[in-house]
Amino acid sequence: MLALIIINAIVIFLTGFNFENQTLKILNWIDVIITGVFVAEITTKISVNGTKKYFSSRWNIFDFTLVILSLPTLAEFIFDADLHDISFLLVFRVARIFKSFRFLKFIPGIEQLLKGIERALRSSIIVLMGFVIYVFIVGVLSFQFFGNASPEHFGNPLISLYSIFKIFTVEGWYEIPESVVENYTPFQIYLTYSYFIFVVLSGGILGMSLVNSIFVD
Amino acid sequence: MLALIIINAIVIFLTGFNFENQTLKILNWIDVIITGVFVAEITTKISVNGTKKYFSSRWNIFDFTLVILSLPTLAEFIFDADLHDISFLLVFRVARIFKSFRFLKFIPGIEQLLKGIERALRSSIIVLMGFVIYVFIVGVLSFQFFGNASPEHFGNPLISLYSIFKIFTVEGWYEIPESVVENYTPFQIYLTYSYFIFVVLSGGILGMSLVNSIFVD
Amino acid sequence: MLALIIINAIVIFLTGFNFENQTLKILNWIDVIITGVFVAEITTKISVNGTKKYFSSRWNIFDFTLVILSLPTLAEFIFDADLHDISFLLVFRVARIFKSFRFLKFIPGIEQLLKGIERALRSSIIVLMGFVIYVFIVGVLSFQFFGNASPEHFGNPLISLYSIFKIFTVEGWYEIPESVVENYTPFQIYLTYSYFIFVVLSGGILGMSLVNSIFVD
Amino acid sequence: MLALIIINAIVIFLTGFNFENQTLKILNWIDVIITGVFVAEITTKISVNGTKKYFSSRWNIFDFTLVILSLPTLAEFIFDADLHDISFLLVFRVARIFKSFRFLKFIPGIEQLLKGIERALRSSIIVLMGFVIYVFIVGVLSFQFFGNASPEHFGNPLISLYSIFKIFTVEGWYEIPESVVENYTPFQIYLTYSYFIFVVLSGGILGMSLVNSIFVD
Ligand code: NA
Ligand code: NA
Repeated sequence: MLALIIINAIVIFLTGFNFENQTLKILNWIDVIITGVFVAEITTKISVNGTKKYFSSRWNIFDFTLVILSLPTLAEFIFDADLHDISFLLVFRVARIFKSFRFLKFIPGIEQLLKGIERALRSSIIVLMGFVIYVFIVGVLSFQFFGNASPEHFGNPLISLYSIFKIFTVEGWYEIPESVVENYTPFQIYLTYSYFIFVVLSGGILGMSLVNSIFVD
Repeated sequence: MLALIIINAIVIFLTGFNFENQTLKILNWIDVIITGVFVAEITTKISVNGTKKYFSSRWNIFDFTLVILSLPTLAEFIFDADLHDISFLLVFRVARIFKSFRFLKFIPGIEQLLKGIERALRSSIIVLMGFVIYVFIVGVLSFQFFGNASPEHFGNPLISLYSIFKIFTVEGWYEIPESVVENYTPFQIYLTYSYFIFVVLSGGILGMSLVNSIFVD
Repeated sequence: MLALIIINAIVIFLTGFNFENQTLKILNWIDVIITGVFVAEITTKISVNGTKKYFSSRWNIFDFTLVILSLPTLAEFIFDADLHDISFLLVFRVARIFKSFRFLKFIPGIEQLLKGIERALRSSIIVLMGFVIYVFIVGVLSFQFFGNASPEHFGNPLISLYSIFKIFTVEGWYEIPESVVENYTPFQIYLTYSYFIFVVLSGGILGMSLVNSIFVD
Repeated sequence: MLALIIINAIVIFLTGFNFENQTLKILNWIDVIITGVFVAEITTKISVNGTKKYFSSRWNIFDFTLVILSLPTLAEFIFDADLHDISFLLVFRVARIFKSFRFLKFIPGIEQLLKGIERALRSSIIVLMGFVIYVFIVGVLSFQFFGNASPEHFGNPLISLYSIFKIFTVEGWYEIPESVVENYTPFQIYLTYSYFIFVVLSGGILGMSLVNSIFVD
């Protein structure tokens, strides 16, 4: 089963490249066969365990949904549907996307891992919410302060939130104050740089608190 | 009360966009009503608990100050003050900014969180001061070494401090030595790069010590 | 022996610069002598300990292979082989490369260190695999979503994987959504930015889980 | 004494700016007075404690050296030496630089802090040496592989070491493989990217091991 999922991953990966028609046909054939095997697997599992027991596992529900979502590709192949029909294309694309989630099954101990991540997230939810609200407050403040000086980065509250998030990732942070201070007096320049250095440092401290709350768990 | 604060946040967020007069009026109306509710809340709390007991909580003093600071917006609305009066505008802007701090109340367990951050900061104060003084020393040293070679980054001690802080955030660090060595001899180039690599590494080790001191707490 | 390895490292390092013939000859002489000493060392060790005991240590096998691989340089020197013979050059280059691995011996306690890294990697293998699979899924998804909008970053699944890895290193992350949204409607722009902010954040959380799993070990 | 050191720091900081002669003279006067006070402090300490006891403390030796090194500035002021004499200028500059190290005394608990850093460094010395040697090996390897393809980043072993250090700081890492692969075949491009992704990841894991070894201490 693991081998099948790996092959499935490789096939989905390869169909992204522009191959000749011949190769694409073969890849589609393999894709169809694998989808068939997965449908067979689920059908067997349900008939053996009974519908109730099968759907009592969250993981099985997830698996079932993914296979159902991959059926349109199968239909497309069997009925040779017109790929140029745009609304169809969208359905297929979404189906193909969700199919890739199935690879999560490939991770050994994925259920325990997901539980661990869930627990870590729950214990760090307060810090995470504090982070979101801090970005919100600093974003609104920065919009009020620098909305006129640098419309590119603080032109409206939404752009301002994005700029503050950018500063919190440190990536290119100093380009933002440097664009803000262009028409400022020296005193305003010092204030602005102090403000952004404070934002970078407080973002770093918040990030470390987030790490801390996850670690302590 | 939580719902009101969230609506308040959304309203303040939306007033940042350029809406038509009609929409802005409605947003202002909602803003005024919410401010009124908060005034009513504080009045009730004070009359029920007594002035002394109310102001014995640091959090209540914070809340009281924020609501007082938001009153100018209310006055503006009632007396239909001329927004083109610049000195008034400034007061309103400051009022609006402080209002956004009220959202801190929205963070669940904010008082405990603030206490935790306070404790963490206190335990890491020595490392934090060490960091500030280290930036100061390296900044003054770099100004002495490279003030003539790269006035853009080390032209005066203040710019030099800023450049060293930039290097400590790693962001764009290597552009600084590369601008310094432009007219240097090979031997000076090697010394300069060694100096900045040492600064980057020591900044990283100091940052880790900071994290360590916060974690150990 | 340690001194020899350090000299060997310096010689290999220096031969990379364009020196005059005279200097290069001396460097080559030193290189040949050191290689000779290492051959002598291994021969002695095998004759004293016996072949079986010598090859029972993984480290000795590694050492033996490296010295064997450095013999072509010796042969080149003795028989004065024509360096312009390209196929020969390749062998020598590979030999010279592998020789540099011998410096690992210089690390004090390298065997314990390698064991520690091995143990840390084994305990974090699930998180590491989760990371690889997460990059794979997000890469395939992003290829489906943005393959047409930004062929430069998501033109095929492989480029897409690379772009997602780039985003996970944070380096230049925001340039990618900014190139994607060029011809997008405002609503699509908001969705795209939300998607990439989620990718950056989830990458950070995964990275912290990786650190966590290594630390806990 | 603390106040004096802070004033001294402010004076050294301010002399970096281009003031009028009048202001500079005042700053120099303050500098001279402070130097005088420090000389008086040391003289008193030595005469009270005795020379032996005074110099038994590493910290006192450090302090004594700094004050001695700041004496040329004093001499310059008293004898009104010609500042245009270049060899003199250099001595003064070095003196002024070392003087700034005196601010380390300002850090509360600096002796304990330095001991802590010393202990942390000693416990992480193996990982730190492993890091240096790893950079050396990867640098020499990369020079052999990409020296011809990208002389800008791997033209000689020294530049190659610098480029690898740059990649380990993550800053601008992807610009390096992108410059290397310009004239490469698709297969070589895939190999090159795989190589650099491995270098980034292994650098991250080594960095985390470094943090780990410091934390565990
Ligand atoms: Na960067
Ligand atoms: Na960066």
